[in-house]
Amino acid sequence: MSKGVTSRKENYSQWYNELVVKADLADNSAVRGCMVIKPYGYAIWEKMRDRLDRMFKDTGHVNAYFPLFIPKSFFSREASHVEGFAKECAVVTHYRLKNSPDGKDIVVDSDAKLEEELIVRPTSETIIWNTYKDWIQSYRDLPLLINQWANVVRWEMRTRLFLRTAEFLWQEGHTAHATQAEAMEETVRMIHVYADFVEKYMGVPVIEGVKTANERFAGALETYCIETMMQDGKALQAGTSHFLGQNFAKAFDVKFATREGTLDYVWATSWGVSTRLMGALVMAHSDDKGLVLPPKLAPIHVVIVPIYQKTEQLSALREKILPLKKELEANGLTVKFDDRDTVKPGFKFAEHELKGIPVRMVVGPRDLENGTVEIARRDTFEKNVYPLHEAVNTTVRLMDDIQDNLYRRALAFRNANTFQTDSYDEFKEILDRGGFIMAHWDGTSETEDRIKEDTKATIRCIPLDAPEESGKCILTGKPSARRVLFARAY
Amino acid sequence: MSKGVTSRKENYSQWYNELVVKADLADNSAVRGCMVIKPYGYAIWEKMRDRLDRMFKDTGHVNAYFPLFIPKSFFSREASHVEGFAKECAVVTHYRLKNSPDGKDIVVDSDAKLEEELIVRPTSETIIWNTYKDWIQSYRDLPLLINQWANVVRWEMRTRLFLRTAEFLWQEGHTAHATQAEAMEETVRMIHVYADFVEKYMGVPVIEGVKTANERFAGALETYCIETMMQDGKALQAGTSHFLGQNFAKAFDVKFATREGTLDYVWATSWGVSTRLMGALVMAHSDDKGLVLPPKLAPIHVVIVPIYQKTEQLSALREKILPLKKELEANGLTVKFDDRDTVKPGFKFAEHELKGIPVRMVVGPRDLENGTVEIARRDTFEKNVYPLHEAVNTTVRLMDDIQDNLYRRALAFRNANTFQTDSYDEFKEILDRGGFIMAHWDGTSETEDRIKEDTKATIRCIPLDAPEESGKCILTGKPSARRVLFARAY
Repeated sequence: MSKGVTSRKENYSQWYNELVVKADLADNSAVRGCMVIKPYGYAIWEKMRDRLDRMFKDTGHVNAYFPLFIPKSFFSREASHVEGFAKECAVVTHYRLKNSPDGKDIVVDSDAKLEEELIVRPTSETIIWNTYKDWIQSYRDLPLLINQWANVVRWEMRTRLFLRTAEFLWQEGHTAHATQAEAMEETVRMIHVYADFVEKYMGVPVIEGVKTANERFAGALETYCIETMMQDGKALQAGTSHFLGQNFAKAFDVKFATREGTLDYVWATSWGVSTRLMGALVMAHSDDKGLVLPPKLAPIHVVIVPIYQKTEQLSALREKILPLKKELEANGLTVKFDDRDTVKPGFKFAEHELKGIPVRMVVGPRDLENGTVEIARRDTFEKNVYPLHEAVNTTVRLMDDIQDNLYRRALAFRNANTFQTDSYDEFKEILDRGGFIMAHWDGTSETEDRIKEDTKATIRCIPLDAPEESGKCILTGKPSARRVLFARAY
Repeated sequence: MSKGVTSRKENYSQWYNELVVKADLADNSAVRGCMVIKPYGYAIWEKMRDRLDRMFKDTGHVNAYFPLFIPKSFFSREASHVEGFAKECAVVTHYRLKNSPDGKDIVVDSDAKLEEELIVRPTSETIIWNTYKDWIQSYRDLPLLINQWANVVRWEMRTRLFLRTAEFLWQEGHTAHATQAEAMEETVRMIHVYADFVEKYMGVPVIEGVKTANERFAGALETYCIETMMQDGKALQAGTSHFLGQNFAKAFDVKFATREGTLDYVWATSWGVSTRLMGALVMAHSDDKGLVLPPKLAPIHVVIVPIYQKTEQLSALREKILPLKKELEANGLTVKFDDRDTVKPGFKFAEHELKGIPVRMVVGPRDLENGTVEIARRDTFEKNVYPLHEAVNTTVRLMDDIQDNLYRRALAFRNANTFQTDSYDEFKEILDRGGFIMAHWDGTSETEDRIKEDTKATIRCIPLDAPEESGKCILTGKPSARRVLFARAY
């Protein structure tokens, strides 16, 4: 708090890194690539989790918990999955430590070597489908609609708080169905649930689409995704939902007796979002003064700051403020009364802005005389004086206003930074200043690879609502049936 | 469901093992010692977790998240902690896999060996106090009241679902205080919170006490615990709260500037409960027909079974049952309408009893004529016919009755199986038939060890409410100031 954060213009990347730490969301830990999620950051994650959990349950899903460890051999079962996932993993090889011969240290006990190494789960398809084998015999056991909240580990070389960490928290849904159509319906249903959550709760507009073969989940036949735009014009993939076909059922031999009495392999989906959403939330809305949080996910909605010179004044203010606080709370708001006497109001204001508290109320001696209160909103910094009796209604209304405004602002920004071009030179120019590009592509992995190598942009998705439009590939000039979304991405 | 479970009398241990699996609480997994918590079991754990989380927040705590991995060297820092915890652990030594030379398999990449091994957390004192070092500078930063919900791993050799598994879910509170008195107050506060939860929600009476030095947490100066009695008369420790003194602050050099301007080490507590509580819940109340769940933790409160011969009858029944279901739900109850036409009512009844659903309602054609419903309670099997318009009130009342009855029944059982003796022969006899014993002890670890070796009983705790009473140690005859609680334990 002693100094502000670097401005976005100066260095967007550094701005993000500093903000996450200074606003008390997370910290780097003593373990390479692993973060500590601090109480303020965790409180936001809890709100995300609780809401998503409600949405999953409302769509018929239940939670369960599967082992942290996966036998190494499981990864070899699904051929494309192993390529994508069994590489940068934390490997458990031993199960005991002992004192070193000189007694001064502890060392790994070489007698306690595992027969088969265990992998700390990078994702749980394999262990879960190995379990489903025992749970599914007949069509009566289907669909199986299970979700898990868990920690996973991917040994990333370059890590950034929330965006890419060796350990992260997430949820992974793993569903089993009797038919291809049902599994596909589930895949699409869940990408819509994610889109709904990210837009309505995080206030971040999304583009729903399908991935190209290059960007597909290892083991999936089709990957649906939601893509969001950050304030530097780069894309951030906020959630994915995979149609896995019968790949995992075949790999783990999960068959069921159909209603017709035949045996068939089960159809699968998986879908997940992670603490990466925290990174998207910060990068989509926040500014050079600090976090800007949508009210629906803010741990504290309102902070009330008393302005006074003498201690007697504080007790007179307290008499007005405490009933106000109570009434705000009765309206479902979380309120902090910041009556610390160790720091000045200006310091408090800066801190509350850094933390992104949506509404700040200030009550001073003049307000006491006039029966008023000053109310400031974090998103626009607009402030006005209201009669005390209007304070609660105004604040309740502001919550909706701020939530809406954040979404509309982010949408306007995305629209202003989304371009359509048929010129490869312009394509590259746009990428350099930042933005999304709708352009034609010839549909081949080779072309996508060449564009990526040349420009660092990838095809984020083929938007679900992309209209048919004949055109020529931006690189090769070959025919294309629709534009796809290109961007550089996190 | 095809066959019932082994009876408690026949083989209590086997009864438990079978019940946990057959009632769909948990399953063994492909990974040695790790369990799969199935949706029905997880739904109970979620209720426990949500309630405990509420109680922690109401006592001023916040949640955070710390890394899964702990550098090996951290365990050497606190001398007594290493002895207790750094032994049977999962050790991560490598961070990459690669294809085997023949391309058929995947193997650990020996080039990707970690410089320092990482231990999968068996408990998080070390990594958390290493973090607190950066968070605590002054008395203004204290107290720090943080809790974490997480998975932990202890490489147990003999495992049993919920009671002792290699991986389990738990919460661990880690608090930091400016004074010894505050830390001690917190330690006691949290054991009371646990006692409150286990008695009021799980319906299991507890004995609060302190552990002897032998049974103390590795690194603690004092361990408070709650001890519960299972139906075989054995004890199960349901929760612990540790006063850690300044041990971890010294090990990780966590000092703070006091109000007086001096520097002092911070005082610590830690406290935890785990999925072990699921085991206690099952073993305390359930019977030979299956689970008996207290309404406050039951995922389903009421099941309604229609009795009919022809399909037309079902639709008439449905017209009565659906509004009843709705009204029950409006009263906060979770209701299942079991209208499956693939199994007979008797099969359904057995299944609902196995799952421990507190109340079963049956509505048949005669009930339609008479405007009645049959209501049966799971705990006593008592069933009565009520006018339909009394069904909701009766059920709501039954929830309280069943909750109370389970507690009173468990308390009566514990009282009937708690003995006081001064004869070592009788002491051994009681242990063989099962029960708690209040007996005198000379206060030495040697005596405790000898009794344990001789009888397999340990001192579960020195109950907080144990009155002063001069006596002679049950083994050595040496003087004792109060009786302590002996039992064989899980």
